[in-house]
Amino acid sequence: MADRPIYRFDEGSAQMRELLGGKGANLAEMVALGLPVPPGFTITTTVCKRYYQLGEKLPPDLMPAVREAMADLERSTGKSFGDPARPLLVSVRSGAAVSMPGMMDTILNLGLNDEVVEGLAEAARDHRFALDSYRRFIQMFGNVVLGIPHERFERVLAELKARAKVAEDAGLDEAHLRELIGEYHDVVKTQCRREFPQDPYLQLEMAIAAVFRSWNNHRARVYRKVHHIPDDLGTAVTVQCMVFGNMGWDSATGVVFSRNPATGERGMYGEYLLNAQGEDVVAGIRTPRPIDRMADDLPEAYRELRRAVETLERHYRDMQDVEFTVERGRLYLLQTRTAKRTAAAAVKVAVDLAREGIIDRSEALRRVDPDQLARLLHRTVDAERAPEPLAVGLPASPGAACGEVVMDADRAEALGQQGRAVILVRPETTPDDMHGIVQAQGILTSRGGMTCHAAIVARGMGKPCVVGCDALSIDLAERTARIGEITIREGDLISIDGATGRVYLGEVPMVEPRVGGEFRLLLDWAREFRRLGVRANADTPEDARRAREFGAEGIGLCRTEHMFMAPDRLPVVQEMILASTREERQRALDRLRVMQEEDFYRILKEMDGLPVTIRLLDPPLHEFLPDVEELAREVAEAAAQGHEGPEVERKRELLRKARALAEFNPMLGFRGCRLGIVYPEIYRMQAEAIFRATARLLREGRHPRPEVMIPLVAEARELKLLREVVAAAAERVGQLEGVEVPAVVGTMIEVPRAALTAAEIAEYAEFFSFGTNDLTQTTFGFSRDDAEAKFLHHYVHRSILPHNPFAVLDEAGVGRLIRLAVEEGRSARPDLKIGICGEHGGEPRSILFCHRVGLDYVSCSPFRVPVALLAAAQAALEGGRCSC
Amino acid sequence: MADRPIYRFDEGSAQMRELLGGKGANLAEMVALGLPVPPGFTITTTVCKRYYQLGEKLPPDLMPAVREAMADLERSTGKSFGDPARPLLVSVRSGAAVSMPGMMDTILNLGLNDEVVEGLAEAARDHRFALDSYRRFIQMFGNVVLGIPHERFERVLAELKARAKVAEDAGLDEAHLRELIGEYHDVVKTQCRREFPQDPYLQLEMAIAAVFRSWNNHRARVYRKVHHIPDDLGTAVTVQCMVFGNMGWDSATGVVFSRNPATGERGMYGEYLLNAQGEDVVAGIRTPRPIDRMADDLPEAYRELRRAVETLERHYRDMQDVEFTVERGRLYLLQTRTAKRTAAAAVKVAVDLAREGIIDRSEALRRVDPDQLARLLHRTVDAERAPEPLAVGLPASPGAACGEVVMDADRAEALGQQGRAVILVRPETTPDDMHGIVQAQGILTSRGGMTCHAAIVARGMGKPCVVGCDALSIDLAERTARIGEITIREGDLISIDGATGRVYLGEVPMVEPRVGGEFRLLLDWAREFRRLGVRANADTPEDARRAREFGAEGIGLCRTEHMFMAPDRLPVVQEMILASTREERQRALDRLRVMQEEDFYRILKEMDGLPVTIRLLDPPLHEFLPDVEELAREVAEAAAQGHEGPEVERKRELLRKARALAEFNPMLGFRGCRLGIVYPEIYRMQAEAIFRATARLLREGRHPRPEVMIPLVAEARELKLLREVVAAAAERVGQLEGVEVPAVVGTMIEVPRAALTAAEIAEYAEFFSFGTNDLTQTTFGFSRDDAEAKFLHHYVHRSILPHNPFAVLDEAGVGRLIRLAVEEGRSARPDLKIGICGEHGGEPRSILFCHRVGLDYVSCSPFRVPVALLAAAQAALEGGRCSC
Repeated sequence: MADRPIYRFDEGSAQMRELLGGKGANLAEMVALGLPVPPGFTITTTVCKRYYQLGEKLPPDLMPAVREAMADLERSTGKSFGDPARPLLVSVRSGAAVSMPGMMDTILNLGLNDEVVEGLAEAARDHRFALDSYRRFIQMFGNVVLGIPHERFERVLAELKARAKVAEDAGLDEAHLRELIGEYHDVVKTQCRREFPQDPYLQLEMAIAAVFRSWNNHRARVYRKVHHIPDDLGTAVTVQCMVFGNMGWDSATGVVFSRNPATGERGMYGEYLLNAQGEDVVAGIRTPRPIDRMADDLPEAYRELRRAVETLERHYRDMQDVEFTVERGRLYLLQTRTAKRTAAAAVKVAVDLAREGIIDRSEALRRVDPDQLARLLHRTVDAERAPEPLAVGLPASPGAACGEVVMDADRAEALGQQGRAVILVRPETTPDDMHGIVQAQGILTSRGGMTCHAAIVARGMGKPCVVGCDALSIDLAERTARIGEITIREGDLISIDGATGRVYLGEVPMVEPRVGGEFRLLLDWAREFRRLGVRANADTPEDARRAREFGAEGIGLCRTEHMFMAPDRLPVVQEMILASTREERQRALDRLRVMQEEDFYRILKEMDGLPVTIRLLDPPLHEFLPDVEELAREVAEAAAQGHEGPEVERKRELLRKARALAEFNPMLGFRGCRLGIVYPEIYRMQAEAIFRATARLLREGRHPRPEVMIPLVAEARELKLLREVVAAAAERVGQLEGVEVPAVVGTMIEVPRAALTAAEIAEYAEFFSFGTNDLTQTTFGFSRDDAEAKFLHHYVHRSILPHNPFAVLDEAGVGRLIRLAVEEGRSARPDLKIGICGEHGGEPRSILFCHRVGLDYVSCSPFRVPVALLAAAQAALEGGRCSC
Repeated sequence: MADRPIYRFDEGSAQMRELLGGKGANLAEMVALGLPVPPGFTITTTVCKRYYQLGEKLPPDLMPAVREAMADLERSTGKSFGDPARPLLVSVRSGAAVSMPGMMDTILNLGLNDEVVEGLAEAARDHRFALDSYRRFIQMFGNVVLGIPHERFERVLAELKARAKVAEDAGLDEAHLRELIGEYHDVVKTQCRREFPQDPYLQLEMAIAAVFRSWNNHRARVYRKVHHIPDDLGTAVTVQCMVFGNMGWDSATGVVFSRNPATGERGMYGEYLLNAQGEDVVAGIRTPRPIDRMADDLPEAYRELRRAVETLERHYRDMQDVEFTVERGRLYLLQTRTAKRTAAAAVKVAVDLAREGIIDRSEALRRVDPDQLARLLHRTVDAERAPEPLAVGLPASPGAACGEVVMDADRAEALGQQGRAVILVRPETTPDDMHGIVQAQGILTSRGGMTCHAAIVARGMGKPCVVGCDALSIDLAERTARIGEITIREGDLISIDGATGRVYLGEVPMVEPRVGGEFRLLLDWAREFRRLGVRANADTPEDARRAREFGAEGIGLCRTEHMFMAPDRLPVVQEMILASTREERQRALDRLRVMQEEDFYRILKEMDGLPVTIRLLDPPLHEFLPDVEELAREVAEAAAQGHEGPEVERKRELLRKARALAEFNPMLGFRGCRLGIVYPEIYRMQAEAIFRATARLLREGRHPRPEVMIPLVAEARELKLLREVVAAAAERVGQLEGVEVPAVVGTMIEVPRAALTAAEIAEYAEFFSFGTNDLTQTTFGFSRDDAEAKFLHHYVHRSILPHNPFAVLDEAGVGRLIRLAVEEGRSARPDLKIGICGEHGGEPRSILFCHRVGLDYVSCSPFRVPVALLAAAQAALEGGRCSC
């Protein structure tokens, strides 16, 4: 059965996609549905594979089978292949199991020759049409099958038009066309040293081989590589009777969707052209009419088309994209396929189909790509209407923004406060730039990766951000930025799209986020199916509120350092760092405690009744100090100008401390719980602030649920010690405030050793949260900031790694550590709660892994909560546990 | 049996150490050997534990048992406790199972009171002696048992001496001593509001309790913590009849060793004092005589002592350290224990004992501490004769050196070439300093950890080096270095000891390495027993020769980057880095290839017949460029002074490139095989150089065995690609040279992901070599350079980690990854050869782990090859596989 080389359309079905290709299978299915399809047959993908096994030769049994199938066609159409009296013409098309639009070749009007063209002219009662069809066929065949460059034919055509003094092809008359056909024959003879083949079966054989060959043309190979399509699938070949939409004003050709592919609204949507061929619609020479006009032009065909499209959508249980031709009033369907659609349409169509009872809710959930959802939540640049981007950087924080270029934070703040829209453009940002970032519409940096300061801060604030834009060469002294030949000055207008990483000159059109009621409904359904909880990473009361609105069921990561970076706090933090005695440090800490208590109070209040995982201070202290180079310059300048005074002295002190704290590899340095071990007073202060806020809320009758998270633990004894610090703080606050405050303590698992010793660590942890950003860095030995800019794109491009492991969780390495930590952590403490708070927590493939490995929740940026919910539901529907 | 609270000396044995403590067990053993030991008994450690269980109370059944044992003592000595007529005095001493010298308390002369002292005076016919013994007893008891500060007694004594106008205690006469005893009684009364106890049994009971208490005094607890001794062992208490070496000129006291503890030479070695007590020897008031003089002074006792010492050494099968007293011509042994010894003595004694048939060879191998061996291979500062060090940094490369301080490499080179000894003192070093390092006697830096540039380069050269000496504050502009109050100027003489990290002002006495014939013999024996192979890490022909001399069986790590850093190569390397086209880069590479070929030729020739594992380029390229800050300064200066020209332009270009290559976390950056992936031409050049050198040697009839090692692999496909590059180079060179060159390719396992995917990687690797320096960094998330200076000492000090994991391999984390990689790597490729080339390869505890986990070899610095050989033999003798 599988060895059968050919299936007539009435012998196949949609299930035979692998064998017949998408096009062949769908044509067969339409025939089975009784829809009007020009008859034809499909040569299987197996034949294609054999073609390659035989060293690019057609199997000897193929052409006899083709002749049989053609005989069937002649019987059913009453026409005859190669017979001028009753000319049967066919199209020969490629069709793989996986859609590869436009990548392979197609030949139309096959079967024409010097004699048949006259018969066609008679039959169509239109000599120009027949001759034009023939010259197009020679050109197409010449190019695709015989390998003659298009330009050879185009040149001849152009010369003829010049001689005939006509501008358009349509201006050529019958005589011109006959002359052209003669010249095309000459082109073929010169180029191939052979006559254009007049034997229709020879044409057919050569065309079939050419389509098989086109499976391996350069652009198809590249397309498969990019889309991870195996090279050995092969293509099917569909041979189908030609029908003509250009046989007069009762003929037409067009494309319709069963719903609006942009909005998802119900009702047929599309366009058509009277008296035209498909390629005319594509060429855009004439303006097509909207499909409902066809009700007047061709009422019978229109009614039939509506019925057919409804049938197809109901049959395929999804929105369809249908090509049709009307030949002398009679409708023919040439292709149907699942329609591509925008994110908004995807949501609406899935929900509507479920509400219409065509699919069930689980199917509706499967139908929407979670990554697409994210696009609904941010303003984006309207790619269709925008010009070419100036440069492309890393898409660090989604959303689009436009503003004037400003190159330092002070100026950004000043202009921002005047209400002017600015884009802060810097080589990179530091905590010193916070006041500028706050006032900017967006941030653009030439350095840094997806976790650089600018990226993290911007994502936290939901502010558009593009980082690591290498092409941008910034000269801070000149206050200019160069991209290739173009120089941008402060004050110039630029636009950035943080979802794509694109940077544009000037203001470009943008699209506002659209969130319909269907969106919310879909998320409700997702909640019914998913097993994983979904929390958000949120550092401020505003973030917390937004996260809750988007459906977050708690905060999985509340970073306390961002609170330290606020402009009013930074000086106090610096005081703490500069303190030379424990007492001095304590004074600064006492002031910070009051501020942090207020932060925690507001966040816990926003998330009342939901868990809030608060991570104690994580970054190295030098991140809170100004840049060493800049400080050194300022101090040197002050010295040179003889300025002295407490301000200069303070800067000198900052410089000394910054130098002392500088690190070779800050990512692996003195940070996380290592700070807490050496300076327990810092963690004590933070724990007290958390528990005081908790006590206040408890007294107000609320339900705060803080969870204290110790970062960067590599050894159980670290956690043991710091757990005691936190528990003592809870105890102390409890006594002070007369309320019992719960001290839930857990840890991040973000270095390999933590995963490898999870059983010991679990003894002291009520929860684990995988910090997969850092865990990926340490497991691979990749500094994200350096890797993404310097070699990681290379790795992904050359398929050394299947994905950027910072975007999609690496199952073989990082995943193995996670699996191990989950198993051994739970074996030591069966009720251990386990989540993930790296950026992978918002990435669908990674969420599937989290589901399979048995995590309790994922946590991601507020904007990705809907994405995560949907992905979690899909994971639950897909089910299963990882085999590895 | 175990509940028996007391053992007489004649009831115990050396095997009962845990119950009787070291001292009690050895005294019992000596009694069993028939040696003259003053009689006594031991209260067990079990009683001590019960003392603590009872809340620091003696068990009620203890004192009755003590009275019984005292009655036995009275019977055997014919003396009577508390009886002035026949006074029996005892010492009460602590003695734990593990030696804790000087940490706990001792009371001598117990049993004296106002009456007994008179009886003692009569018996000794020496009133001064008896009275002095009594006042010492009151003072000792008052301090140890009653808790009265020493100074209280010392003040009274000082006042009395002032009144009596005598300078020395010995100047006090009988009347003074009687007065003193009276005043001491008053001190006790005032301080304790009670009389000094006159009842000998009450004294004894209180003394026993006090010794138990001393188990938990502050210094003992600290000592146990530092030496990882469990807190719950408890101490035994030994009660022993007093004998007196100060009863006239036929009495003496002394300490002897059964061999020379400094050199290991055979023959009794020690010293004694006539008419003196043990504490006089310790106090150093009189100069003791060498032991052989005793043959004249006390011939009978001397002969007996010699026999006893010989008996003890033969019995304990090791060198003994024996305390003795001669009371009126009669010899008493008070203690024997295994003697502490120098490294040189340890080797000689072990070998001699084996040659004498006292122990066998395996026992001899067990007897020497491998870490001690290392000290035999370097010059060291003579700690006994040297002054206090000025500061202590990290001991980065062993050996001692003295020279004048020089603060830049150019000057170091210039002076060095004039034959002057210099110590290069810098905040840190870079490849730019190489010419200075080469000419310096030693290197001292204020920054950096054990793997900083200076440390690695110095170890490679076997040059003394101290790094990360925080106390040192260097001012390069002023050309001074400050340590506390002291300012060191260029030209000042300093000495450093790279084995201890100590820094001294001026020239200090040093000890040259001593390597006797026994040393070599011991290593030969080690080779018989060990299973692990031992290779060396060596980067130059000189290193290779030295490694071979020290017994290395190959090179486990030959770093090619150090070849790049040689002053004549660096400009070419920089050319390669600056190249803007592939052609330019290739030209630089071609020049490097010729130089590298010569390097490899010489190294492979030195190691003819032995494997040489050559690691392809590993460090990030910016390490080959000058410091950004310095370059920026130079360029700015040149600009300010209007200088221009090709040199300035080159610097500007270097600066641009250095900035572009700068990384946030170089350790996790663009280095290792990532360079090879992006710039395959670099690895191709290196592989060609290796194979050309190999071909040359093959043609010369030699047996080169190169193994090409790809660093920093995290994913099997990296290795697959680069293996192809290397194999192609071998093929090309083979065809070119007409000799078949073997392409053995393997990889370092130095990031967790490599270990986690070892099975896949093993498919493309003929060998694995664990790079445990980097593997430790990535597994813990510790940057070694930052961690050691900033928090790691804290971790070790507070026992958060048992050791510095960069010194002793972390079995729980890093070891788990190694075990996993060994198992899965071998399961994929059973003949996979596996070694380790991190610094742990020369550390004995880590070598034991390597043995147990089944590695094939360890590789370490040439100087540690003997250490590793011995440790490998000990591991084989200890045997076993890791349970975890």
